[in-house]
Amino acid sequence: MNIGIIGLGLMGGSMGLALREVGQIQNKHINRILGYDKNALHSQQALNLGLVDECVPLNEIWQCDVIFLSVPVDGIVELISSIKPQDISENATIIDVGGAKVQILSDIPSWLRHHFVGAHPMCGTEFFGPKAAFGELYKNNIVILTDLEQSGAYQAEIAKDIFIGIGMKILKMDAHSHDKHIALISHMPHIISYALANATLAQEDPQTILALVGGGFRSMSRISKSSPLMWKDVFKQNKENVLEAMAYFQAKFNEAKELLEREDWEGLELFMAQANTLQKFL
Amino acid sequence: MNIGIIGLGLMGGSMGLALREVGQIQNKHINRILGYDKNALHSQQALNLGLVDECVPLNEIWQCDVIFLSVPVDGIVELISSIKPQDISENATIIDVGGAKVQILSDIPSWLRHHFVGAHPMCGTEFFGPKAAFGELYKNNIVILTDLEQSGAYQAEIAKDIFIGIGMKILKMDAHSHDKHIALISHMPHIISYALANATLAQEDPQTILALVGGGFRSMSRISKSSPLMWKDVFKQNKENVLEAMAYFQAKFNEAKELLEREDWEGLELFMAQANTLQKFL
Repeated sequence: MNIGIIGLGLMGGSMGLALREVGQIQNKHINRILGYDKNALHSQQALNLGLVDECVPLNEIWQCDVIFLSVPVDGIVELISSIKPQDISENATIIDVGGAKVQILSDIPSWLRHHFVGAHPMCGTEFFGPKAAFGELYKNNIVILTDLEQSGAYQAEIAKDIFIGIGMKILKMDAHSHDKHIALISHMPHIISYALANATLAQEDPQTILALVGGGFRSMSRISKSSPLMWKDVFKQNKENVLEAMAYFQAKFNEAKELLEREDWEGLELFMAQANTLQKFL
Repeated sequence: MNIGIIGLGLMGGSMGLALREVGQIQNKHINRILGYDKNALHSQQALNLGLVDECVPLNEIWQCDVIFLSVPVDGIVELISSIKPQDISENATIIDVGGAKVQILSDIPSWLRHHFVGAHPMCGTEFFGPKAAFGELYKNNIVILTDLEQSGAYQAEIAKDIFIGIGMKILKMDAHSHDKHIALISHMPHIISYALANATLAQEDPQTILALVGGGFRSMSRISKSSPLMWKDVFKQNKENVLEAMAYFQAKFNEAKELLEREDWEGLELFMAQANTLQKFL
């Protein structure tokens, strides 16, 4: 069994490392892990770091038994539209790991649909590129498989076995629910972090930030390090849900502002105590 | 030399542990570390955890050579207004570790001013109470000493020696600058985190949050665990600066929202790339 990985950054590179560790899928030995990245430097880095066995042209990747699409979500849509029936093998399983699912899954041509599994591994870091990859990224995290009933039974099994094999827990969800919930729990908080970083940069010089920074600001600004290229695509594909999530946050932020403005300290304490309840289960 | 600590939570309790570790100040041996907490359970916990040698009534604390005020900032203001000249020894050094400085320092009666050192150690965690205390809290972090020229020369030296002794780096700043900068870099991000937690709790059930949570949301919601009691006081005392900081954040959040609404993806990518520059020095 050969694996192809398109996009050798944090997600794709870590998948290569994790799969090599696992060694087999459904009792079939993983022979070769082939990689492709349109960025030649990233291909070279991925090879040097041992993320894949070899970097090959795209047409060779498509011939693999399992193909991961681990590029920004607009790139996934482009790749999908470029595949032709003769490009892939009869039992090919193509798995995308993009963070927004509705547009990708609705753009798949019907002939390709059963080959395809839409996955969103709920893990990542603020770092990106091949150097960010590490073999433990996926372990003990959840992967959401979306609209799985539209995938072929064989392909669904392969995908589940791979994700379980690399230590993940599987959760099924329809793509629309996924995109709506994830907008609030993941996408929108990234916008907050980017906005906080920009507000601070606009008001403070680096010396002051460094002098006054504590654990709180470090936590809140950490994900403002994340890849603009990757996130631009996610925001583009999940725009409506993200705007809705921003409105939910805005309403609570305004609530705090009004409590402060009218000096309702008891109300503000209650507001914070309410937030504390999140931590009962998180 | 005896040390008194009023308030035996994260800050005060950790100070007790750190000072016992240091053992001396200016070549003078630390004999006893006395504690006071108006919460009887916290006093007992502090004793059990060995944060202080003994819990004593407030009047005995005031007789110590060095007294730490490590209660919420409104409590510090109350304590200051309650001290009488006969309560404290001639060379007493009183150090507060509150997170907002202007009101505290302007409320000190003039007879007390030279005894007093206003300090803000730039460290903490989202946990609070005696059980949250640990001896390494202060180590390698910065402490801001505010309006230090108004402290007595002896008291300023004692305070500096203590903070250096427990491994901190000292930075001097006037109280107004401190409160303004810290509103943006620390106080306001807490409001964001509380608001994010509340927005999520209002929209999502615990199962969905747990299923979809990743490192990003964990980072962004971590400080929404923080003490409502402590933060209410900080927001009260630093209200104007916090509201101003909220407006700075709001402007950047709106900027992102408008870029999304008008689908200016290039502009949004630039907005995120700008935020990335924070991480060049942080």
